[in-house]
Amino acid sequence: MREKNIKKVNIGMIGFGYIAHGVFELISKQKEYIKKKTGRQLDIIRIAEKDLEKMKSVPEEMMKDIEFSSDAADVYQDPEVDIVVELVGGIEPAFDFVSKALNSGKYVVTANKDLMANRGEELYKIAEQNNVDILFEASVLGGIPIIGPLKTTLASDRIYKIAGIVNGTTNYILTKMGKDGLSFNEALLDAQELGYAEKANPSADVEGYDAACKLAILSSIAFNSRVVLEDVYKEGITKITGGDIEFAREMGYCIKLLAIGTEEDGKISARVHPALIPSEHILASIDDVFNAVYVYGKYIDRIMCYGRGAGDRATASSVVGDIVNIARNFDRVKKGIIYGCSCFENKTISSIDETMSKFYVVMDVADRPGVLANIAKVFGDNDVSINSMIQKQIGMDNRAKLIFITHIAANRNLYSSIEKLKKLDVVERIQNIIRVEDLD
Amino acid sequence: MREKNIKKVNIGMIGFGYIAHGVFELISKQKEYIKKKTGRQLDIIRIAEKDLEKMKSVPEEMMKDIEFSSDAADVYQDPEVDIVVELVGGIEPAFDFVSKALNSGKYVVTANKDLMANRGEELYKIAEQNNVDILFEASVLGGIPIIGPLKTTLASDRIYKIAGIVNGTTNYILTKMGKDGLSFNEALLDAQELGYAEKANPSADVEGYDAACKLAILSSIAFNSRVVLEDVYKEGITKITGGDIEFAREMGYCIKLLAIGTEEDGKISARVHPALIPSEHILASIDDVFNAVYVYGKYIDRIMCYGRGAGDRATASSVVGDIVNIARNFDRVKKGIIYGCSCFENKTISSIDETMSKFYVVMDVADRPGVLANIAKVFGDNDVSINSMIQKQIGMDNRAKLIFITHIAANRNLYSSIEKLKKLDVVERIQNIIRVEDLD
Repeated sequence: MREKNIKKVNIGMIGFGYIAHGVFELISKQKEYIKKKTGRQLDIIRIAEKDLEKMKSVPEEMMKDIEFSSDAADVYQDPEVDIVVELVGGIEPAFDFVSKALNSGKYVVTANKDLMANRGEELYKIAEQNNVDILFEASVLGGIPIIGPLKTTLASDRIYKIAGIVNGTTNYILTKMGKDGLSFNEALLDAQELGYAEKANPSADVEGYDAACKLAILSSIAFNSRVVLEDVYKEGITKITGGDIEFAREMGYCIKLLAIGTEEDGKISARVHPALIPSEHILASIDDVFNAVYVYGKYIDRIMCYGRGAGDRATASSVVGDIVNIARNFDRVKKGIIYGCSCFENKTISSIDETMSKFYVVMDVADRPGVLANIAKVFGDNDVSINSMIQKQIGMDNRAKLIFITHIAANRNLYSSIEKLKKLDVVERIQNIIRVEDLD
Repeated sequence: MREKNIKKVNIGMIGFGYIAHGVFELISKQKEYIKKKTGRQLDIIRIAEKDLEKMKSVPEEMMKDIEFSSDAADVYQDPEVDIVVELVGGIEPAFDFVSKALNSGKYVVTANKDLMANRGEELYKIAEQNNVDILFEASVLGGIPIIGPLKTTLASDRIYKIAGIVNGTTNYILTKMGKDGLSFNEALLDAQELGYAEKANPSADVEGYDAACKLAILSSIAFNSRVVLEDVYKEGITKITGGDIEFAREMGYCIKLLAIGTEEDGKISARVHPALIPSEHILASIDDVFNAVYVYGKYIDRIMCYGRGAGDRATASSVVGDIVNIARNFDRVKKGIIYGCSCFENKTISSIDETMSKFYVVMDVADRPGVLANIAKVFGDNDVSINSMIQKQIGMDNRAKLIFITHIAANRNLYSSIEKLKKLDVVERIQNIIRVEDLD
């Protein structure tokens, strides 16, 4: 019965780099499989790529029914193209291409997190005006299905928290620092050599920009209210030392770069920062380039999804998953919205100052009687109370390193106590401050 | 724009027990939310339940627009009902109700794993004949989205393995045995008192029947070929002792009830049995009633989904997720298949004899020179080689307990060596044999 009803859906690709090669390979090799499984025949009919060198890696016989061009307009203006797959990356010219594709009545699939975290709202409006849709599962967590479940199976639940490890590069670096004792710089070099971190400019990963884009996208969908990149507070991992990892371990924690979004009483908080998490928590065992995200809802309690957060094959699987979702619902005449924008609320974004957490604070101090009392008083005067403390001698002179973990305190209070501590004679320097998240 | 396009979708429920109460509550409380998020208004217009007592727990004002009946036909014959939610459980009369609902052109949502693991193929055929669909996300893993992702985001990938913990009750029992040192019977009693295990007849859980149903359903979808309950090999956990858990721990393992489905060269293997898994593996940290399933694909590598595998609220979330998926695509005039049956292949089911694993074998033997050599020879003669062994004295007499872990061996070879070992004078008894799965 199904064989008789095969629908053909034509795909045009804009951008033919690393991920696009994965998409091309997956669609080519799995074409018959996808046809049998879903009743849809996916044909790539056009590819546009400025750098024609990038075509050369593909065997000629796989390319024979495809029209090439260096101009994206050739793809989105072709009336035969049903779905445009944008894999150019970055905000411009991707925004221009995608908005024109939507305005030409094409469905769009993209893996572009910068685009969606910054200009998602505009694109959804254009899609809705044209009665089509834009899908972007591959923009977060590579091959792990998370946007789809949030928009479908979990759509009826009230999600109030998402938390996890959403950047593979920094997780690889922290794993190497924790397990092999590498310094940050050594681990970064290692990640660069393996192609996990960019050589020229690794800052998008290590400064938390990549994770913040993903958190903006996930928060918008989870909390039904637009969260853009600049709404997300971010700290990277460059300040983490081997000493921090050792002290954390001694106190029962390991250090991960977390992305945490919460919604409470109509206020959204979204933050990306390194955090100490309990060593026995499942997230502590997510190593190397793997990602994992917890979703907390009033009905589901919690679920967690784990997998490869990057890589051409895993990411391609999500891109093609979106294409299949569109193709399943595809009707060239009637078109229609698949999921559409679900940001029907307009919530406030909390400032990081209002956030409550435990904190890990390391400082070098003079080692003499009364010092701890002085420091404890400053914390106490600012409504920060101490949960645990360890002291380490520094060399042979009368100096010591104090490592504190506080009880839950307001970000604002913690930082005002730090300002006052810096003025104490006995405090030589505040070496590091990292949030502590016990997670559920 | 969305407000103008609200579509109303009418729901009829058959069965009004524990999960159904959760579904009713979720739809009632989240009605406005779902409407805003998805553009669909879900109205429960009919409920049928033989035991009218079960209605009494719901406040009257929530029931005012709903017609009650003790006859399921009143639900599936009502032309106003668009989606029938079957929450009766068991194979009959559920099969009768569901097939009649499909034949009346209704979409069906069910949480019924027995039904789908035994009669899924027939129901899909009836659904297809009537151009509607049957969705059953809630039949496996409670609130965890897994069928949806397999049918959508992961649809283009070739899945070759699924493995995980799919039964909450047995995982609770094994956690209690491992962490609190309870015996199997004590842990079962505990589970019964908390309502995790049935009091009258806990065997569906502890004998692996429940897990086998879920594995049959997941394997059918993952491998595109029908796997029914009787295709699944199963062993329960009643034979696991505190001693096994101790010995396993000493050798770096913990014991979990696993469901494992694999596909290789057109052959499917599906088995549910307790297994030793490495203590540092993520599955080893899935405790209590939580479930977790790994999915391995050629493109995604692996993903894992984790969450509450049971409970009325989590399961209700999956039921309503399916309702939303149907409602999103719903057209009273045109109808149509949402995902449909994807079993387009017809693969062979391997016998358990062909399975390869490592094995944990515990036996009581006479403690005298040459015994180990005798035993090792029997294993060796049957192509089973030993990976590690520990020996424990038993009491004061000359007896010892030998605990072996083998290298990977064919099930058939392991069991023929066991038959021969039983005949050795020095072997007093074979106390237990459990598979060992190193997992990836």
